[in-house]
Amino acid sequence: MLEKLINTALGKQPADLLIKNARILNVFTCEIVHGDIAIADGIIAGIGSYGAAPRVEDVAGQFVVPGFINTHCHVESSMVTPDVYCAEELKWGVTTVITDPHEVANVAGVEGIRFMLDVSANVPIDYFVQLPSCVPATLFEHNGAEIKPDDIAKLINEPGILGLSEMMNYPGVLGCDAGVMEMIVSARNRIIDGHAPALSGKDLQAYAAAGIRTDHESTSFEEALEKIRAGLAVLVREGSAAKDLRGIIAGVVASGLNTDRMAFCTDDKHIADIRRVGTIRHCIRESISLGLEPELAYRMASLNAANIYGLKGLGAVAPGYQADMVVLSDLEDVAVSQVYKRGIRVFPGEFKHRAVSPRFRNSINIAPLKDDSFQLPKPKNGGYPVIHILENQIITEKSFIGADLVSVRLQSNELCKIAVIERHHATGHTGVGLLSGYGLKNGAVATTVGHDSHNIIVVGTNDADMFYAVKEIQRMQGGYVLIRDKKTLGAIPLPVYGLMSACEPDKFITDLEELTRKARDAGVSRNIDPFITLSFLALPLLPKIRITDMGVFDVEKFEFIH
Amino acid sequence: MLEKLINTALGKQPADLLIKNARILNVFTCEIVHGDIAIADGIIAGIGSYGAAPRVEDVAGQFVVPGFINTHCHVESSMVTPDVYCAEELKWGVTTVITDPHEVANVAGVEGIRFMLDVSANVPIDYFVQLPSCVPATLFEHNGAEIKPDDIAKLINEPGILGLSEMMNYPGVLGCDAGVMEMIVSARNRIIDGHAPALSGKDLQAYAAAGIRTDHESTSFEEALEKIRAGLAVLVREGSAAKDLRGIIAGVVASGLNTDRMAFCTDDKHIADIRRVGTIRHCIRESISLGLEPELAYRMASLNAANIYGLKGLGAVAPGYQADMVVLSDLEDVAVSQVYKRGIRVFPGEFKHRAVSPRFRNSINIAPLKDDSFQLPKPKNGGYPVIHILENQIITEKSFIGADLVSVRLQSNELCKIAVIERHHATGHTGVGLLSGYGLKNGAVATTVGHDSHNIIVVGTNDADMFYAVKEIQRMQGGYVLIRDKKTLGAIPLPVYGLMSACEPDKFITDLEELTRKARDAGVSRNIDPFITLSFLALPLLPKIRITDMGVFDVEKFEFIH
Repeated sequence: MLEKLINTALGKQPADLLIKNARILNVFTCEIVHGDIAIADGIIAGIGSYGAAPRVEDVAGQFVVPGFINTHCHVESSMVTPDVYCAEELKWGVTTVITDPHEVANVAGVEGIRFMLDVSANVPIDYFVQLPSCVPATLFEHNGAEIKPDDIAKLINEPGILGLSEMMNYPGVLGCDAGVMEMIVSARNRIIDGHAPALSGKDLQAYAAAGIRTDHESTSFEEALEKIRAGLAVLVREGSAAKDLRGIIAGVVASGLNTDRMAFCTDDKHIADIRRVGTIRHCIRESISLGLEPELAYRMASLNAANIYGLKGLGAVAPGYQADMVVLSDLEDVAVSQVYKRGIRVFPGEFKHRAVSPRFRNSINIAPLKDDSFQLPKPKNGGYPVIHILENQIITEKSFIGADLVSVRLQSNELCKIAVIERHHATGHTGVGLLSGYGLKNGAVATTVGHDSHNIIVVGTNDADMFYAVKEIQRMQGGYVLIRDKKTLGAIPLPVYGLMSACEPDKFITDLEELTRKARDAGVSRNIDPFITLSFLALPLLPKIRITDMGVFDVEKFEFIH
Repeated sequence: MLEKLINTALGKQPADLLIKNARILNVFTCEIVHGDIAIADGIIAGIGSYGAAPRVEDVAGQFVVPGFINTHCHVESSMVTPDVYCAEELKWGVTTVITDPHEVANVAGVEGIRFMLDVSANVPIDYFVQLPSCVPATLFEHNGAEIKPDDIAKLINEPGILGLSEMMNYPGVLGCDAGVMEMIVSARNRIIDGHAPALSGKDLQAYAAAGIRTDHESTSFEEALEKIRAGLAVLVREGSAAKDLRGIIAGVVASGLNTDRMAFCTDDKHIADIRRVGTIRHCIRESISLGLEPELAYRMASLNAANIYGLKGLGAVAPGYQADMVVLSDLEDVAVSQVYKRGIRVFPGEFKHRAVSPRFRNSINIAPLKDDSFQLPKPKNGGYPVIHILENQIITEKSFIGADLVSVRLQSNELCKIAVIERHHATGHTGVGLLSGYGLKNGAVATTVGHDSHNIIVVGTNDADMFYAVKEIQRMQGGYVLIRDKKTLGAIPLPVYGLMSACEPDKFITDLEELTRKARDAGVSRNIDPFITLSFLALPLLPKIRITDMGVFDVEKFEFIH
C-alpha cells in the first residue's frame, strides 16, 4: 500500500481516483492552488498535474477543501440514530465527528456508548467518542445508569475513543472530588474536554492546570480569549439553542486574534436544523459573513480541529493525508457540491440504514401506574410551589399557591399538573407538581426526552389523560404523545432508548411539524416548543425551579421544596 | 499531586516556587501579560496574582518565555558528551532537545544510542531521540555497526524515543526500497523526520505521501514554502557549517507566511560555537533581527516545535504545562538571565559530569600496521587520481597525476598522502590516495572523526609520521593528532567512541584552538579547518572525489576509481 501511494505520487502508477482541475485550499499556507489531486487507497498521494486514471472527476475549477470536523456534538440531540445523523453530516461536508454520547449513557451506560459506536459504523465517517464524564449529572434525580471512574479507565484507550468528554462538574474539579480526580488521571494522556461556562480567574487556571484542554461554553469573545490565554482550545458552538458564534467570531475579526486554538462545534443540534443549513458548514458560512478570512474559517473547521484532538492524517488536502474532501461551487457561501470520504464519493449518494435491533428499543421500564399516581402530595405551609414557564426562555420562575385554589385553577386551565416518572428501573419514583404558562387546554402531553436523566415527563389538565399518555409512551417504548379524552391526537415514536427516532429523517421532521401544530391547536403557547420546553423542566441545574422524579426542586436554594 | 496543582492554582495552597512580577509571553495569543507564575511539582499551576510561597523569585519585570526546543541536533557534532552538551544547551535556554545519534550509531549501533540516552539522563533536560534511519550511510565504506529495520521496530516505542530520524535515503523512499519501507511502517504512528535537500515536485509529493513529516534541509524560502505546502514541517537550521536561517526567515518576513509549521534546529553545531552564542537562542535573535515579530520567533522555538513533535505539556507558559521557562532581561536580544527546568533553576547553576566508563572509551580497533600500510596501490592508466581541497568549501575537485611525478610532488609538499583505515573491526581495510591543497609541510595529521563511518583519516608528508600518527590515535583511543618527526606536536583525545571529548568544554575549546594554531604553523592552509576538512574527505556522497577505507571514490561516476 505504501508502495502504491509512492508510485501514484510519482506518476508511475495511475491513481485510483483523480480529481482534476481543482482550486485546492492549502490549510498550511492559507493559499488556494490550482491543480489535480491523485488518490490511492483512500489517501492523497500527490497534488500537482497528473495524467489518466481509471476514475477521473473533473471539478471544473471548483474549490476543494478538507473535510470538516465537528469537534463536539451530542448525536442524540438530533433525535435520529447515529447512522442517520452521520449520513446527514456527510451531506454537509462533515467527514469526522467527535461526539459525546452523554444522553444515551444516562439511559443505558456503557452499553449505550457501544451502541452509538456500532451503529455509526454503518456510515463511512470517522466517528470518535469522548467518554461522558458526568453520568448521572446530578444527585437529585434517578437516571438509568452510571459511568464510574472504573468504566473510564477500562474504555479510555479503546479504538474510537479519544478521551474524556465535557467535565461539567467543574466544582468537582476545583474541589478535588475523588471520582473526578480518578477520571482525569485515567484520561491524562488523552484529550479531556471542558465545559465551564463563565469560569474565570484562578478557577479557570485551576481547571486548566488539572489537564482540561478544550471548552465549548464561551458565549463572548472576552470569555473565549481568557480561555485561550489559559491554554484551552475554544470550540465555537452554534447549535439549535445555544448560538455563540457571532459574539466570538466578531471579536476575533475585530482583534485579529490568531485562530489556531479555535475550532467549530454544534453541541446540541436538531436534525431539522441540520437538514436546513448543516452543522460546521453553517459555522464556516456565518464566520465568513462576519468578516473572517475564508481560509481561516476553513482551517478552523479542519486542520485546527485535527491538531487540537491529535488526529494524525486528518484536516488537510495534502500528500499522506486521508482523502476527506469537500468540493464547493462557492467558497464564501460554502456551497457543497460533492463530498469525499477516504477517496470515496459520499455526496451525492445514499446510505441504507440498518434497522435497530429490538434490544435497543425497550428502555421504558416503569412501575404499574396507580389511581393516585398523579395525585399531588400533601400541601406544605398550606399550599404548593408553581413552576412558571417563560416564553422563549429556558429559565423558569416560581410562585406559591394555596391548596384551596388548586382545583379551581386546574379547571380553568390556568395551571396544569406536571409529573416526572422514573422510567429506567420501575422504581415507581414519581414527582408531581403544578405548572403554569404551558397553555394546554384539555388533555395531556408526554415525552421520554428529559435532560439529563430522561425520565417520563407528562403534563396534563386531567389525571385520566396523563395516565393514558404514559400508557401510550410505554406502548411506543418512548417518544412524544399528545392525548385528549383518552385518545391519541398525535405521537412521534422515539423507540431507540426513548431518545431517537428509527425512521427516515424527512418523515420524522414532517411528523414532528404536524404534531407541534396539533399541540398548539390544543392550546400550547405559540412562544414555546411544546416538547423541548418540557425536556428541560426536569434538569435541576437550570434556574429557578424544576421537577424531577424525586419532587419539586428549588435550584436557587439547591434543595427539594415539595 | 493533581490536588496540589489545583489548590496551588486556586491560591489555597502556597506554590513550591513563585515567579513574581514577570512579563510573560503567552504563545497562544502572542501577547505579553504581566503577572506571577505559581509552580507546583514542576508544573505551572496558575498565572495571575499569587501571594506568599516558600520560594519566591522576583524577576522585576523581566520577560518569561517558554523553554526552547532544539528540534534536530547531532550531539556528537558538538564533540562533547551528551551531559556536557545538554548543560550547555540549558545555559542558553534550551530545555528540550530532539537528537539523532547518527554518528555514534555508525560506531556502536544500538549500544551507542543507549549510551547517549543514559549519559544525557545526568542533566535535567528533556532529551528525546529520533532513531537513525541510515546506518551505514553508504555501501562504499565500512562502518562500525548497522541499524536494521528490526532494530527500529524494537526501539520505536521505547521511552525517550519519538520516532525515526532524517530519512536521508530519499532515493530509497522514492524507489520503495524494502528496508526503508519496513522502517517507515514501523514508525508510521510516530514522527518521521525527513532530509531531502532540494527535493521538489512529484518527488516531494511522494516523499510526503510516504509519511515523512519534517525536513531541515531547506536553504531558501522558496524551498521551505514548497515543503510546507506539501505538509512537511520546516525545521529552520542554523549550525556551525550549514546556515539556512537568513534566507528562509527573510522570505517569511517579506511574505507574511504563517509560521505555525516552522521551528528551529541546529543539526551540526560545534561546542565552541554553542558556547559563544547558543543554539536556538541564536536562531531567535537572528530571526528578530531580520524583522520577524519576537512573539512569532519565540513561538517557533517553543509551541510550534512541541506541536510538530506532539510533545504534550511542553512549549508554553500556561497552567498544566511543564515549568520550563527562560527569564530574559531583553526580549529582542534574547538575553538569558535565568533558566528553569520543571520548576528548578538550572541556570545560573553548575552540573557535575560523570566520568565516562572505560567501556565506551575503547572503540579504536585496527589491524596491525605494516611497513607498506601507506604505500600507494599500483598505478592505473599510468598514474593516480588526486583529491583537491578547495578553500572555504566542502566540495573537492579531482585531477590526475602520472606515476613518475608522484615522489617529486610529495617531496616538494605539493601533494600529501591520505589514508583511511577501517578502525572498528580490525579488518585492515585501508584506502591510500593523494591529496592537494591541504598545505601540511612536514609531518602528519590524523583524526577519528570521519563522516559517516568514522574511520581513521590520516594525512602526511611521509609514511613514518603517518604510521606514528595512527599509533598515537590508537593509544588515545581516538582524537586529533599532529605529528612531526615521530613526535607529537599536539593532540586532542576524543576517547568517547572516538568522537567526543571527556574533558570540560573550556579546556577542550582552548586545547583545540592551540592545536589548530600549531597545525597552521605546520603549513596547513589558513582557509581550511585542519581537522573538520579531513572529517568530510571520507564522505562518499559529497562531490566530486572522496576516499574511504575501500579506496578513492569518484562521486560523479558513483564508482571507485582507485
